[in-house]
Amino acid sequence: MARPGFPVTIRQVALHAGVSRQTVSNVLNAPHRVESGTRQRVGSSIEALGYRPNRNARNLAARRAGLIGYCVPESDTPNPFMDRFLHLLTAEVERSGRNVLLFTGGAVGVYADLVAQRAVDAFVLADTVDDDPRHGWLAERDVPFVSFGRTWTGRQPGPWVDLDGAGVCRRLVAGLHDLGHRRIAFVGKCGATGQYLDRVRGWRAGCDALGLPSDRLVCAEVDTVEAGGVAMRNLLDSEVPPDAVIAVSDPIAVGVHREVRRQGLRPGTDVAVTGFDDSPLASVVDGGLTSVRQPVERFARTVVDLLDSANGDRCVLLPGEIISRGSAPIRLTEQDVNEWESR
Amino acid sequence: MARPGFPVTIRQVALHAGVSRQTVSNVLNAPHRVESGTRQRVGSSIEALGYRPNRNARNLAARRAGLIGYCVPESDTPNPFMDRFLHLLTAEVERSGRNVLLFTGGAVGVYADLVAQRAVDAFVLADTVDDDPRHGWLAERDVPFVSFGRTWTGRQPGPWVDLDGAGVCRRLVAGLHDLGHRRIAFVGKCGATGQYLDRVRGWRAGCDALGLPSDRLVCAEVDTVEAGGVAMRNLLDSEVPPDAVIAVSDPIAVGVHREVRRQGLRPGTDVAVTGFDDSPLASVVDGGLTSVRQPVERFARTVVDLLDSANGDRCVLLPGEIISRGSAPIRLTEQDVNEWESR
Repeated sequence: MARPGFPVTIRQVALHAGVSRQTVSNVLNAPHRVESGTRQRVGSSIEALGYRPNRNARNLAARRAGLIGYCVPESDTPNPFMDRFLHLLTAEVERSGRNVLLFTGGAVGVYADLVAQRAVDAFVLADTVDDDPRHGWLAERDVPFVSFGRTWTGRQPGPWVDLDGAGVCRRLVAGLHDLGHRRIAFVGKCGATGQYLDRVRGWRAGCDALGLPSDRLVCAEVDTVEAGGVAMRNLLDSEVPPDAVIAVSDPIAVGVHREVRRQGLRPGTDVAVTGFDDSPLASVVDGGLTSVRQPVERFARTVVDLLDSANGDRCVLLPGEIISRGSAPIRLTEQDVNEWESR
Repeated sequence: MARPGFPVTIRQVALHAGVSRQTVSNVLNAPHRVESGTRQRVGSSIEALGYRPNRNARNLAARRAGLIGYCVPESDTPNPFMDRFLHLLTAEVERSGRNVLLFTGGAVGVYADLVAQRAVDAFVLADTVDDDPRHGWLAERDVPFVSFGRTWTGRQPGPWVDLDGAGVCRRLVAGLHDLGHRRIAFVGKCGATGQYLDRVRGWRAGCDALGLPSDRLVCAEVDTVEAGGVAMRNLLDSEVPPDAVIAVSDPIAVGVHREVRRQGLRPGTDVAVTGFDDSPLASVVDGGLTSVRQPVERFARTVVDLLDSANGDRCVLLPGEIISRGSAPIRLTEQDVNEWESR
């Protein structure tokens, strides 16, 4: 029996309008069967009581869940960029009349359970890794999904959107060269991931295009400030130290920046430093850290567009935005910024 | 008609086992009606095909959605603490056999729609504000919810869990006093929110208990490093400047810390500084910033416990953990740390 207040049932609407439940159901689902005066009366009762169709019933009938599945890491080093992406994705999914269903775990079995229960209509895959098992698994079963990120395998199934990492690293080299730097090092993270190798390729291509050496490549052991400092110490100890450093993340860049100062050099003037992700760290460093801002709003919008797109294999690369600060006062130009690629 | 692969239907199970659909349905919902040999055969088919009951159908029958609603800010200053809370909450909700449904907006109307559609079974309210309208609105309609945070009204309806802000500020005063500091200032944020006043009360109570003055109270205009620096400049300009500062957030504390150094003073030695939330900023500052770590794992577990608790009005206060670093090398003791309060 319906309780006073929410949620309102079809039975309550029928009583209010003085008609049968079947009539109310017809008004909602087959209005052509109902005489117009009755339709209006039922419509007024629906408004007056604030009735909304039961989502589970409607989804069942339409064979849809109205939900998009998204996996969050249970506990992990904080990733403010991915958290912001989730907030924006939630809003974009809502605008398209659905909601996000969150889960953790990420092993293929979790996806299998949700698919088997018809709990979601599609997935947004994020935090992708090299040779990620999820894409092929879902594609083989015709489960709709969009990937935010590449898996760097030969042929990645399904639509994806990603940052053009190589492109922005190439532009960073050009910008640093423009400021007069000629010995541009790259400080990466240990572990030859596809994303990292893509950015190295961009740095190399940028150096080659300008006739600069690309031999100063070192790795920080882990993605931390301390490890960045250690990597920079090694670079500065070498025979011909760099006059600029492109670091593959903001924490590593902060470590590089600190080591520059610790050795009595001036960031930006003696040694330019750039980071990645434009995190709060980047503005806290003395003089500010030049970094790359990822177009997170566009990522969220593009993911939802791809979800609803008929074309199953679209791939979109979006350009990163260089945020110029004291550690490398790169002059920004419009040139080469609007890069798109779509299969 | 079912497609090859997922999801498997009752019809497919029936064909596989050589029985009627009604028999399969009975095996799932009224097994006592089915002869044991048939039950086993159907069970084997279910396993072999990987059939799982349709979540929407099951939820409809059980009059439950299996989902807990949670509102995320669409776009906002990043809050890594709340993002981490969401990840841990997702895992805890999953352990209890449900999932989190995300939405944005947060106006009472959004909650109304989700309730009317029976899209969720309950809500977890977060990012609470003074006189938050949601708690009373949901309580009046008997919609289950738990609040992570207080609304600072006379009588907050529904169960809640929150940080004991006053308690940890009192302990910070005691810890600073223990280090020899006697002129302990409090740098807050403009705007007299309940949470802020609660922490001020704790600082005052701590000072009173030790016979220290509690007149050095200033506000940073906004929650930023710059504003913290401005507030500290004012404090240091006064007749009798402080020898310790409790700041109400990490960004403000970093601003205070910078101003101390800018004026040629040594943080920790000349002027002790403490922050709040133990964000990545706290470890990046030179010498490290003493801060308060919120027990986010316990918050998530407690919220889910309260969701399922029969007692509708339990309130839980959890203690903050003081993380001692160079800016205020407070010696930690077990005393007064395990604080609980439950109505």
